[in-house]
Amino acid sequence: MFRINGENVEMLIVQAQQATFQELPLESGEVLAPATIEYETYGTLNAHKNNAILIIHALTGTAHCAGKHSEEDKKPGWWDTMIGPGKHIDTDKYFVVCSNCLGGCSGTTGPRSINPKTGRRYNLQFPQITIGDQVELQKQLMEHLEIDRWLSVVGGSMGGMNTLDWTVRYPEKVVSAIPIATTWQLSSQSIAFNWVGRKAILSDPAWENGEYEKELPESGLSIARMLAHITYLSDVGMDMKFGRNLQEENKVSKDFSTSFSIESYLNYQGQRFVERFDANCYLYLTRALDYFSLADHGDGDLSKALAKATADFLVVSFSSDWLFTTEQSKQVVEALKNNGKNVTFSEIDSNYGHDAFLLEVEALGTMIREFLKYQHTKLVRGEK
Amino acid sequence: MFRINGENVEMLIVQAQQATFQELPLESGEVLAPATIEYETYGTLNAHKNNAILIIHALTGTAHCAGKHSEEDKKPGWWDTMIGPGKHIDTDKYFVVCSNCLGGCSGTTGPRSINPKTGRRYNLQFPQITIGDQVELQKQLMEHLEIDRWLSVVGGSMGGMNTLDWTVRYPEKVVSAIPIATTWQLSSQSIAFNWVGRKAILSDPAWENGEYEKELPESGLSIARMLAHITYLSDVGMDMKFGRNLQEENKVSKDFSTSFSIESYLNYQGQRFVERFDANCYLYLTRALDYFSLADHGDGDLSKALAKATADFLVVSFSSDWLFTTEQSKQVVEALKNNGKNVTFSEIDSNYGHDAFLLEVEALGTMIREFLKYQHTKLVRGEK
Repeated sequence: MFRINGENVEMLIVQAQQATFQELPLESGEVLAPATIEYETYGTLNAHKNNAILIIHALTGTAHCAGKHSEEDKKPGWWDTMIGPGKHIDTDKYFVVCSNCLGGCSGTTGPRSINPKTGRRYNLQFPQITIGDQVELQKQLMEHLEIDRWLSVVGGSMGGMNTLDWTVRYPEKVVSAIPIATTWQLSSQSIAFNWVGRKAILSDPAWENGEYEKELPESGLSIARMLAHITYLSDVGMDMKFGRNLQEENKVSKDFSTSFSIESYLNYQGQRFVERFDANCYLYLTRALDYFSLADHGDGDLSKALAKATADFLVVSFSSDWLFTTEQSKQVVEALKNNGKNVTFSEIDSNYGHDAFLLEVEALGTMIREFLKYQHTKLVRGEK
Repeated sequence: MFRINGENVEMLIVQAQQATFQELPLESGEVLAPATIEYETYGTLNAHKNNAILIIHALTGTAHCAGKHSEEDKKPGWWDTMIGPGKHIDTDKYFVVCSNCLGGCSGTTGPRSINPKTGRRYNLQFPQITIGDQVELQKQLMEHLEIDRWLSVVGGSMGGMNTLDWTVRYPEKVVSAIPIATTWQLSSQSIAFNWVGRKAILSDPAWENGEYEKELPESGLSIARMLAHITYLSDVGMDMKFGRNLQEENKVSKDFSTSFSIESYLNYQGQRFVERFDANCYLYLTRALDYFSLADHGDGDLSKALAKATADFLVVSFSSDWLFTTEQSKQVVEALKNNGKNVTFSEIDSNYGHDAFLLEVEALGTMIREFLKYQHTKLVRGEK
């Protein structure tokens, strides 16, 4: 490790790992047997085992949250700005674990995995999965890694829902929790956007009722992604970045190809996405989002659900996030306060919309760094 | 005409009419020859010809804004709550004109009309049209009806853009203007939503590069509509009306059919829409929205553009409309004020989102009624 001008220029070289468990019972009553989880770890678990942090990705993320897989890798992990030696989530201090969520397509069992009963891909034979099922698989990984308690569980968006679920499903396993840009349940509007996105996939003839092999339903998946991408940005952020800028001078086009910059940007996002993500996974994961309600842990009552939590919370929202709003985060905070829990809440002022959790690195990172330090100190002092 | 308990129970029976003009020069430089416009009129043009009101519909509307075409008609015109004998826009007093906009599919020339040069539908041979072109066709209708000035031009959403355009394109023809739930130009986000909607149509194999005949691109068009429909509602309105209500008790569905009420509602909206609207028209009309900027009348400067207007304005926005926001309406109002124009502005508090302009009948109607009365009085007194 070396530093130049106080900047850490070391790049973590990491390898993805996999663990396979005999079975994973699901909330639906079905059982996945076996269930594989892909994960990466960064840093070292200390002798007291009190420095383990679980990072949980958003809808389409992977286990690869930091570092590179080789020196030649062009891009580092998806939260490399946050996680690494000397960074806000400091892998010199903490043992960081990140896994691909159940239902994904980056190494963990999902709809495109081989069903051992048939020797063929599950596709729509894959059982419906939930955010809770994702947590259960992470719990098996935790045991596999012989970690007793997470110093912190940290996640944005879908990862934040996982984080919230952890705190009430396994309160004794979670010292602290950092749910970011997330919600305890989707609004009607968010369910509606997911619905239209899935419709685009289901309507793509190449989808073939989920049995696509050579030709992929790229058109439908890219439309779903473009739509979702709009919800990840903010109105004001889009106006600032793209406005009504045209791609070319001559504004009246005869056909319906891209004219505005925002259009070619969305096209690009759609194209990149279909290269790395799977349509059936998108169907299953967005359904898991739709069905999630933390209140289910409290007979429909959020406050009752969060009464079970024992973790300290750092809840973070972003001012221009209209997908998972500050108001929704505040509902979580209020429910925690009602139960006398330790909770710190911050709304970070940002024009980046929902995506802010990946972009507002300094504002968010500083908060996380201090919170983790405090939590670790509490643990070391035996106060938790 | 008769009234029961002060309620007007008379139903106007109206007939759609058509006028065909030799040619309509377009902003693109192309010429439509001929151009037909479908329209309806309600009430009687008085001898002074000072009681004519032009109503302009939103994106997918028709000339049929009030009354029924026969006693047996199940549904009245799209703004029948507002327009009719004794209603807020009182056809006992005013001569109301409503036409189908250029590029539509309800009687007025559009992409599905027959191209006289080929004897076949225009489809993608139809020239790109603009909001200004729509106004030019309405202007020809005005001359056809021998109307010298509109007492008022009234329109919501796309109709509001037409209204704004009228005030600077033909200021001498417009005594007053009521742009409702509209904007002087689309935001980047609105352009983005239109883009994704069009993508869904273009990606539908049944679209056939616009040359569909028997099989219609219903799947793509319904997805476009469902997406647009979300933008017509508000987040809070959707939560109040649909929330997370399920269609059926058992929440975990194995397939990806409708589970939530909001999903079946959107499906229904999509299905109804494809029965009455055309995919190519949707492409052309949303493009016209995208390209519209009132500031084009002022070398890119909204204030300079509105300096040309001589009408009195009643600008109305709705608090939960996030498609065309109060802020956008206020920009119009500020530009008018900068120019010393007469402008009344009202933001109506509503949870109905963009659709509020069709639903907040009492609040909006009372305002329109008083404004029209005042404008008519001014005209009669020779003050305008």
